[in-house]
Amino acid sequence: MKIQIINGPNLNLLEKREKSMYGGQSFEGYLKILTDVYSDYEISYFQSNIEGEIVNKIQETGFGYDSIIINAGGYTHTSVAIRDAIEMVKCPVVEVHISNILDRDDFRHKSIIGPVCTGSIMGFGLDSYRLAVESLRIKNRA
Amino acid sequence: MKIQIINGPNLNLLEKREKSMYGGQSFEGYLKILTDVYSDYEISYFQSNIEGEIVNKIQETGFGYDSIIINAGGYTHTSVAIRDAIEMVKCPVVEVHISNILDRDDFRHKSIIGPVCTGSIMGFGLDSYRLAVESLRIKNRA
Amino acid sequence: MKIQIINGPNLNLLEKREKSMYGGQSFEGYLKILTDVYSDYEISYFQSNIEGEIVNKIQETGFGYDSIIINAGGYTHTSVAIRDAIEMVKCPVVEVHISNILDRDDFRHKSIIGPVCTGSIMGFGLDSYRLAVESLRIKNRA
Amino acid sequence: MKIQIINGPNLNLLEKREKSMYGGQSFEGYLKILTDVYSDYEISYFQSNIEGEIVNKIQETGFGYDSIIINAGGYTHTSVAIRDAIEMVKCPVVEVHISNILDRDDFRHKSIIGPVCTGSIMGFGLDSYRLAVESLRIKNRA
Amino acid sequence: MKIQIINGPNLNLLEKREKSMYGGQSFEGYLKILTDVYSDYEISYFQSNIEGEIVNKIQETGFGYDSIIINAGGYTHTSVAIRDAIEMVKCPVVEVHISNILDRDDFRHKSIIGPVCTGSIMGFGLDSYRLAVESLRIKNRA
Amino acid sequence: MKIQIINGPNLNLLEKREKSMYGGQSFEGYLKILTDVYSDYEISYFQSNIEGEIVNKIQETGFGYDSIIINAGGYTHTSVAIRDAIEMVKCPVVEVHISNILDRDDFRHKSIIGPVCTGSIMGFGLDSYRLAVESLRIKNRA
Amino acid sequence: MKIQIINGPNLNLLEKREKSMYGGQSFEGYLKILTDVYSDYEISYFQSNIEGEIVNKIQETGFGYDSIIINAGGYTHTSVAIRDAIEMVKCPVVEVHISNILDRDDFRHKSIIGPVCTGSIMGFGLDSYRLAVESLRIKNRA
Amino acid sequence: MKIQIINGPNLNLLEKREKSMYGGQSFEGYLKILTDVYSDYEISYFQSNIEGEIVNKIQETGFGYDSIIINAGGYTHTSVAIRDAIEMVKCPVVEVHISNILDRDDFRHKSIIGPVCTGSIMGFGLDSYRLAVESLRIKNRA
Amino acid sequence: MKIQIINGPNLNLLEKREKSMYGGQSFEGYLKILTDVYSDYEISYFQSNIEGEIVNKIQETGFGYDSIIINAGGYTHTSVAIRDAIEMVKCPVVEVHISNILDRDDFRHKSIIGPVCTGSIMGFGLDSYRLAVESLRIKNRA
Amino acid sequence: MKIQIINGPNLNLLEKREKSMYGGQSFEGYLKILTDVYSDYEISYFQSNIEGEIVNKIQETGFGYDSIIINAGGYTHTSVAIRDAIEMVKCPVVEVHISNILDRDDFRHKSIIGPVCTGSIMGFGLDSYRLAVESLRIKNRA
Amino acid sequence: MKIQIINGPNLNLLEKREKSMYGGQSFEGYLKILTDVYSDYEISYFQSNIEGEIVNKIQETGFGYDSIIINAGGYTHTSVAIRDAIEMVKCPVVEVHISNILDRDDFRHKSIIGPVCTGSIMGFGLDSYRLAVESLRIKNRA
Amino acid sequence: MKIQIINGPNLNLLEKREKSMYGGQSFEGYLKILTDVYSDYEISYFQSNIEGEIVNKIQETGFGYDSIIINAGGYTHTSVAIRDAIEMVKCPVVEVHISNILDRDDFRHKSIIGPVCTGSIMGFGLDSYRLAVESLRIKNRA
Repeated sequence: MKIQIINGPNLNLLEKREKSMYGGQSFEGYLKILTDVYSDYEISYFQSNIEGEIVNKIQETGFGYDSIIINAGGYTHTSVAIRDAIEMVKCPVVEVHISNILDRDDFRHKSIIGPVCTGSIMGFGLDSYRLAVESLRIKNRA
Repeated sequence: MKIQIINGPNLNLLEKREKSMYGGQSFEGYLKILTDVYSDYEISYFQSNIEGEIVNKIQETGFGYDSIIINAGGYTHTSVAIRDAIEMVKCPVVEVHISNILDRDDFRHKSIIGPVCTGSIMGFGLDSYRLAVESLRIKNRA
Repeated sequence: MKIQIINGPNLNLLEKREKSMYGGQSFEGYLKILTDVYSDYEISYFQSNIEGEIVNKIQETGFGYDSIIINAGGYTHTSVAIRDAIEMVKCPVVEVHISNILDRDDFRHKSIIGPVCTGSIMGFGLDSYRLAVESLRIKNRA
Repeated sequence: MKIQIINGPNLNLLEKREKSMYGGQSFEGYLKILTDVYSDYEISYFQSNIEGEIVNKIQETGFGYDSIIINAGGYTHTSVAIRDAIEMVKCPVVEVHISNILDRDDFRHKSIIGPVCTGSIMGFGLDSYRLAVESLRIKNRA
Repeated sequence: MKIQIINGPNLNLLEKREKSMYGGQSFEGYLKILTDVYSDYEISYFQSNIEGEIVNKIQETGFGYDSIIINAGGYTHTSVAIRDAIEMVKCPVVEVHISNILDRDDFRHKSIIGPVCTGSIMGFGLDSYRLAVESLRIKNRA
Repeated sequence: MKIQIINGPNLNLLEKREKSMYGGQSFEGYLKILTDVYSDYEISYFQSNIEGEIVNKIQETGFGYDSIIINAGGYTHTSVAIRDAIEMVKCPVVEVHISNILDRDDFRHKSIIGPVCTGSIMGFGLDSYRLAVESLRIKNRA
Repeated sequence: MKIQIINGPNLNLLEKREKSMYGGQSFEGYLKILTDVYSDYEISYFQSNIEGEIVNKIQETGFGYDSIIINAGGYTHTSVAIRDAIEMVKCPVVEVHISNILDRDDFRHKSIIGPVCTGSIMGFGLDSYRLAVESLRIKNRA
Repeated sequence: MKIQIINGPNLNLLEKREKSMYGGQSFEGYLKILTDVYSDYEISYFQSNIEGEIVNKIQETGFGYDSIIINAGGYTHTSVAIRDAIEMVKCPVVEVHISNILDRDDFRHKSIIGPVCTGSIMGFGLDSYRLAVESLRIKNRA
Repeated sequence: MKIQIINGPNLNLLEKREKSMYGGQSFEGYLKILTDVYSDYEISYFQSNIEGEIVNKIQETGFGYDSIIINAGGYTHTSVAIRDAIEMVKCPVVEVHISNILDRDDFRHKSIIGPVCTGSIMGFGLDSYRLAVESLRIKNRA
Repeated sequence: MKIQIINGPNLNLLEKREKSMYGGQSFEGYLKILTDVYSDYEISYFQSNIEGEIVNKIQETGFGYDSIIINAGGYTHTSVAIRDAIEMVKCPVVEVHISNILDRDDFRHKSIIGPVCTGSIMGFGLDSYRLAVESLRIKNRA
Repeated sequence: MKIQIINGPNLNLLEKREKSMYGGQSFEGYLKILTDVYSDYEISYFQSNIEGEIVNKIQETGFGYDSIIINAGGYTHTSVAIRDAIEMVKCPVVEVHISNILDRDDFRHKSIIGPVCTGSIMGFGLDSYRLAVESLRIKNRA
Repeated sequence: MKIQIINGPNLNLLEKREKSMYGGQSFEGYLKILTDVYSDYEISYFQSNIEGEIVNKIQETGFGYDSIIINAGGYTHTSVAIRDAIEMVKCPVVEVHISNILDRDDFRHKSIIGPVCTGSIMGFGLDSYRLAVESLRIKNRA
């Protein structure tokens, strides 16, 4: 079971973002816990601030991996290119957000990529990622 | 650990709704599986087609239960009353949807209750409910 | 041939509403005429001011009756819940309005339930209901 | 009792339009049935693809006939000129549509002429016309 | 002089809502003060979380009472059904709000029922109700 | 000095339109007065209910006449074709309206042809036409 | 207890405005009654048609008076300058309107100054002012 | 026959405004010509850059003069106060514009005061004023 | 191979339209060149200023010809009737524009007929037509 | 080098406005510092709460001074009259704001006068004015 | 004659996209055919998923090549940066799309780059590119 | 004192952009002057056409430098990713624009990054950058 986690812009400095919303922890730290809990899964991690590199990674893994988990950060609200890549690939893509984007600025309410993802999970802090992995486990066992 | 699941209008006849979207299974059937998996939790279930009865139930359980999991159905997009009830109670409320509401009619894209919920999970079929319960388990263990 | 007529909020006091628009006659009075004219049909009548009770009635009759004729009153313009119920049931649903809603306040121009009904009839006073029944008779004879 | 039926653009080739929506029958064929059923009425028929000719016909018959039944086709959504003609004439005008325009493209949801018609009937296939004639019969007998 | 006060959803738990906005007092407590001050008036009180029950109460009292004072809570912004009931009854209806709804979320700025009420009073805390009663006293004495 | 007056749809039955707004007089009657007052001008008159015939007439006279005075009726608010014709011809075009279109339905507030006309005159009853002719006289004398 | 009443444009000729809406009485006449009823209060009155003079008066009295009661007339819907003045001063400001502005032209529905006022009272005729004074009396006695 | 001409902001320096649009002539110069042509009329002139002073002047002359001709300049698009004054007074008010406002910036297309004026004349340069006076002469002679 | 070219309003006077945009050449002149280049094709030409005549021509040729090339001129942005005709006929329809409509007035940006055409070509001057013919040649040879 | 600084409404009581945004200093105090720093410039200061007086001052100085620096306060978002005055005068006009208006209420995001100013400077506290003066010094030395 | 073809995001995996819309062929395969047909032209090809690299390539070739043919993929609807690059370079730029973007999701209807391109060609499958090259050949021969 | 200047897309070819708006000078040329004038400051320069590289640079310098001066070019109007980076870093960020973006295309009026910048300076040509540096000098000396 191969899973690709893709993080968009500014998630490489998660620990520097607003503490009440992002928890003050680095994603790398969290990733270690996640891979421990799901040690039977092969979880790869990729982060980029560059929209097109995220498109590249989706194209690269979307035909061979079992699932992509994506937090497109600021590109969530603007990127038709990422949306098209998600729509094109074969594997299911789960959208996650650390915070509840519905409770923030108006322009963050709308996800351009949401409609082509299998599902969305948001507002559970970093555990949104864990629930995304869990969703795959449940589905596989069914 | 006491959890209240609240289902809004038309979810009482889930098995009669569009199969490709809702899976053709009754919620009661699914609930049995859920309570088996999470047998250490006390999970109550309530369904109503009446907006105000949902408000009543939120008020009734929202001060004593550990969590509410709500799928407000068609009221998701129209009910300020349910939103106000969620905002008023003490316990965290998780919003779930069986289908990906972002991939349906325009008027279903916007959730009025989303901004006051802790988090949202949608698109995983009936397992959206399971992930909601799981989110509590993860949080409690942390 | 079983037909269910469902009237929404404030139609229980039809005779008290604006005379030039509603005619000053009670619905019950009109219903008697209607059942006389179509004595070979079994016509049931239900009225409620409560949105969810209308949902209940649609669910209850929508699988066994031959047709539902609905005037959702004020819920016409706001109720996703009623729309979902109509979409879910098996029997055809005809939307009627006593007045021409296109010639009234802006917020009354749009019918949320219209797109999932078989057809709509409006502006013929109480005879909108009669034309709805007639539409079934024509269809049956064809 | 003299009735003028007016059909707008593309209704002259009804049998060539999308079968699931229009039934694959020509209007002329249907008209014969209609005049048989209502043999005590004098029913005239006019079709034009030209907006202004429809205005002409409304002006010509709207002061002498007992009723006009109009399906303005594509002009339904754009013609202020036809609306003004309807508003100006003396006899009642009933709007009909073969399909349920609320269940089609967004730009077809709004009828410019609807607000000045007596009533509207839509979604009953060609029988929308028959119901329009029937509405006059009911009214006359009353 | 008979007055009916009608409170909408969540006002039954007023003392649990945001203190800075609602004052932390139950409505029942306030009502006692109000009936003391206006002991020469017969003031009835009704609260419901169910939209249609509010419609019922307006119909029930709106022909026999001297005035209705209504705080429709979350239904203020969404209920055409309540609006229609208010428009239909004979007695004047005064709209009140505890907080200044213009200073809150965008979707709370618009009152659907406001345009059919005699007048509106908002922002004076629970004393908005008292001013509504006072408005009747002034009017009666004039 | 050759002037072409062009009237759009429904202005051929001016005397049948709402008296308080249009005065109950036929345009032909008024035209006689106008040609008497401005007997030194050659004033031609054309009316059509057909949009394209108005385009034709503008093309026909717009290169040889000294001025066109146009009341495009219902096409004022919808016709890009008439606008393009006005923009293309050489002679100045003056827009007139009998009533004050700003004081009528919302969809009548916007004139599509206004921006390409020399000027607009509206609200003076049939004398709007006379003022349009007068505007040419003043200009010529200057 | 010092109260400043500020009236905006055209309220100086109240007796000339539409009688059914404004009552045909001059404000000066009403003011006399008001000062009689509240003889223990020092009530000053200021009217101006000039937006900036209203700003001046708010600045002048807003730091020394106990309350300002303002009916900004037409500036209600357009003046950011008056809003900023209200927000800046120390004393509470109550907004009043003689008519129910929600039941008039669309552009009158929105109050620019409302969100920064303590509360709003509208629709009670000239007694809207009296209720505003009363709101202060109630508050003081509490 | 007493006529009051009112000019709004920046029309006092007409000769400094864009020549192709305003002609490079001062209004005072033009006024002299106008009073010569209509020497049998008593034409007063008032200009102010202050919105409220325009309201004052309308109030002052609107009950005693036979007509007001107003070019509200920039206030045309923003002033509810001037609109209310025009609506309140007895004499007819004619709106004029030197340029064709429909052919300029979007925010200049809409006239707030237009709907309450008798009529509007625009695009004829300074002769828009002359046509406004002429409209009164025609009306008087009728 | 039979091709029908249809030109909408004002394209009959192409040589009189704005030179920088339309080139100052008549369409008839260009057509001669076009038929020379594609002498193996049977190219018919039709122009009308009347919307309904364009509908007529589409109906007439759309079942027997191999392709229609249409420049609907001003009707591009307003005609649902032409759109319906295009959708109804059998042969492919190619939309052309001489200028780049995206670089002109806002109301020209949207093509009502575009979504039902096979493809669109615009901005290449009169050669837009040639490219449309070429598109058919390429397709046929494939 | 003559510079006119113009301040709009409520800037005369700057020291009373929200400290975190405006700094709690009076403008007069700041002006003294400014004239000291730029002692070789002749800096005049004008403040008014009245829109039209600001127009007056722009007209008065805009033909003789070298530059105008304007903070139109609340009129920034509403005044077409001030915009027209700025556009009409000869000298360059620089727009300044103390706070970052893009980070405040929605209705403050849009500056009506911005498009006709040479440039805009905002968000630097009172030093926005100093930067405006500096911009002139840099330009002059170039 | 040097031509640069630029393809935006996801066009590198054309053969994996929806077959009915994109034909299931790789662009590289098509390119070979294209260069064979136009062997007298020097056609370069560049594809990138990264917006800024597309900007780079436009800058690099836009001053030396004879033409750029661009299919900006998902960036068509969002990229002001690519638009600015196109506007800045010297050579003409032709926009192409494989599918008819007007017949897809709403957010794909608007092309940000279209208004600054010479022309647009869409809906002809991969032959849209060939028509773009052909447009240059025609232009050159003229 | 370390300052990072960041320029977005197409600013690397400034000398090729529209001369009347950008001055025809390269940024590198201007930068030399700037570093001469502020020789006591350490000014670094970075330009990229790639959105994500701008995010990278903001992250890289935003915690160690004293200030960032950014002209995000076309990304100003579209990039949530750059906005998030600016909001995350510690040092103040000043937004500059060479031209007055309020006087250009509609879609350039709105700055997505503006609300999270300290301040904005625009319209002063390349001297907008100098004023940005100056703003820091003034602040430091204070």
